[in-house]
Amino acid sequence: MKAAVMHGAGDVRVERVPDARLVESTDAVVTVARAAICGSDLWPYKDMAAGGSGRRMGHEAIGVVESVGKDVRKIRPGDFVIMPFAFSDGTCAFCHEGLHTSCLHGGFFGTDDVPGAQAEAVRVPHADGTLFALPVHADDALWPSLLTLSDVMGTGHHAARAARVKTGQSVAVVGDGAVGLCGVIAARRLGAEPIIVVGHHTDRIALAKELGATAAVSEQGTAAIDHVRALTGGLGVHSLLECVGTEQAMIDAIGMTRAGGAIGRVGVPHYHAIPEAAPAFYANISIGGGPAPARAYIEELLPDVLEGRIQPGRVFDRVVGLGEVPEGYHAMNARQAIKVMVRP
Amino acid sequence: MKAAVMHGAGDVRVERVPDARLVESTDAVVTVARAAICGSDLWPYKDMAAGGSGRRMGHEAIGVVESVGKDVRKIRPGDFVIMPFAFSDGTCAFCHEGLHTSCLHGGFFGTDDVPGAQAEAVRVPHADGTLFALPVHADDALWPSLLTLSDVMGTGHHAARAARVKTGQSVAVVGDGAVGLCGVIAARRLGAEPIIVVGHHTDRIALAKELGATAAVSEQGTAAIDHVRALTGGLGVHSLLECVGTEQAMIDAIGMTRAGGAIGRVGVPHYHAIPEAAPAFYANISIGGGPAPARAYIEELLPDVLEGRIQPGRVFDRVVGLGEVPEGYHAMNARQAIKVMVRP
Repeated sequence: MKAAVMHGAGDVRVERVPDARLVESTDAVVTVARAAICGSDLWPYKDMAAGGSGRRMGHEAIGVVESVGKDVRKIRPGDFVIMPFAFSDGTCAFCHEGLHTSCLHGGFFGTDDVPGAQAEAVRVPHADGTLFALPVHADDALWPSLLTLSDVMGTGHHAARAARVKTGQSVAVVGDGAVGLCGVIAARRLGAEPIIVVGHHTDRIALAKELGATAAVSEQGTAAIDHVRALTGGLGVHSLLECVGTEQAMIDAIGMTRAGGAIGRVGVPHYHAIPEAAPAFYANISIGGGPAPARAYIEELLPDVLEGRIQPGRVFDRVVGLGEVPEGYHAMNARQAIKVMVRP
Repeated sequence: MKAAVMHGAGDVRVERVPDARLVESTDAVVTVARAAICGSDLWPYKDMAAGGSGRRMGHEAIGVVESVGKDVRKIRPGDFVIMPFAFSDGTCAFCHEGLHTSCLHGGFFGTDDVPGAQAEAVRVPHADGTLFALPVHADDALWPSLLTLSDVMGTGHHAARAARVKTGQSVAVVGDGAVGLCGVIAARRLGAEPIIVVGHHTDRIALAKELGATAAVSEQGTAAIDHVRALTGGLGVHSLLECVGTEQAMIDAIGMTRAGGAIGRVGVPHYHAIPEAAPAFYANISIGGGPAPARAYIEELLPDVLEGRIQPGRVFDRVVGLGEVPEGYHAMNARQAIKVMVRP
């Protein structure tokens, strides 16, 4: 079969690889209907060292179950499934608590053991715990939004939960990428007001406003902090969704947050220590978040997707075939596309 | 009157100063019945630069109201009051939310404008908002515990709240000082189990166990982390109360906390950035806390003090007169006393 392999910074190739197959008795093999390129895939695209056999990329997918191992009880061949970006057994203490990304027997796609989903098919460990089988036949038009439940919409929602978004309270979303846009959707869905998006890409800000942002702040650093504070009576926002992952984004986030407020960070941190330790302390700002337990959120978010109340699939503004995945990376990295969907 | 003045590291003197007097119409003057030396007073005791006119220390007190300004409506001369370590107007948005330490018109004792309470008397701004008048005549025997409601018990309780302590869930308290001991009391009061105290002072650990700790960890660094994890099935604790304020304490705290758990930090941070940004992220650990809104917690904690269900006054193991305050600082700094009460 064909799959996308990253060999180093800027070097993604589509190659012929061994077919995905069952390895453990709890596995499923899923034929990929749609996959995606994630903002987090751009980090190795910027800095991965060359050499070695390369990394099989991709951790977001929807598709049809092709085969299951003998110990798979719930998932069946033919099921149309959402594959969250982390696999999880569904039975451990953390899975029971809804923190599937910390599953005691779980892990992540895109390794030598568990290759990625930017491919014709993907092996899914712990199929019963990992996969979510759709209860109804989903219209093709819903596929982009369903695909976001494997990661990006769950991640935006996780940021909102970690930032304790509440009805009628103020929110700022730092970052206008696909995660930030889903953060806007999540904040709107939870009834926040105002919702301030912080970013400087005109097209993305326009989309953020369509998705629920009530104001936009395009400055950076201190000027952005001042602007957010001016929009909130000088106090800052109750809830801050940090959807970038840089140290500067965290500095801005802490500066924009109200005393007693909460920051939900979901941008993969590219800083060793969280800045502004003392200002955050004196203002009693809490900082939470991490990898989203997307699996846990599907049940909560799915009805809103199926009934069209949220349309997170709108974050996809480009579709490529598997052969064009390298161009997809280039477009996202060059900020020519917000998020790229892959149609194998 | 007489008051304690810090002139530099290691240099506390008891001096004759102008009598405390009403300045604003919302002030009260309180005759100090008991004051205290705080662990946070030891930071300037270690590193304050000499020179200048000195700092009037002390921010914890109980006492009797001597006089009130003409705009004071609720507090009356003769009231026996608890003075929280921050003053607050009681009417702003933050006071209404219970975050009095962020009061829009509030501030802290121990400045040129608002001298400290290690003195015969203290001027209290925003008397109606700041002071808590006891509804009953309190027995002298309760004074030490009542005094802790001005700071240290409220701070231990705040650590527990910020760490989301819940009945039946595991807690570790990093630090065996007076705040850590009050953290143990708070965790026990909220029904946590087990409660692991992390510290290496034999006498304090013994007291921690009397106050509710179910286990003690006396190692430091990685060994301490391993020990806490061993005591919690390898997973770490749900709630971590960080009661020290050093970078190492935060590194230990993050290492000891369970995925999805929460850290409440109340030790004044002596680090510029919160370490372990990535491990905390990948484990979805949230980090909250800050200066405790002690004023907000008095109503919740007072009944338990008055009825003897908690005895936070036990953290005081030395009592000095005003003239011996310098010896009190020395004893606390040398770890010869856990916490010193001042009887002017």
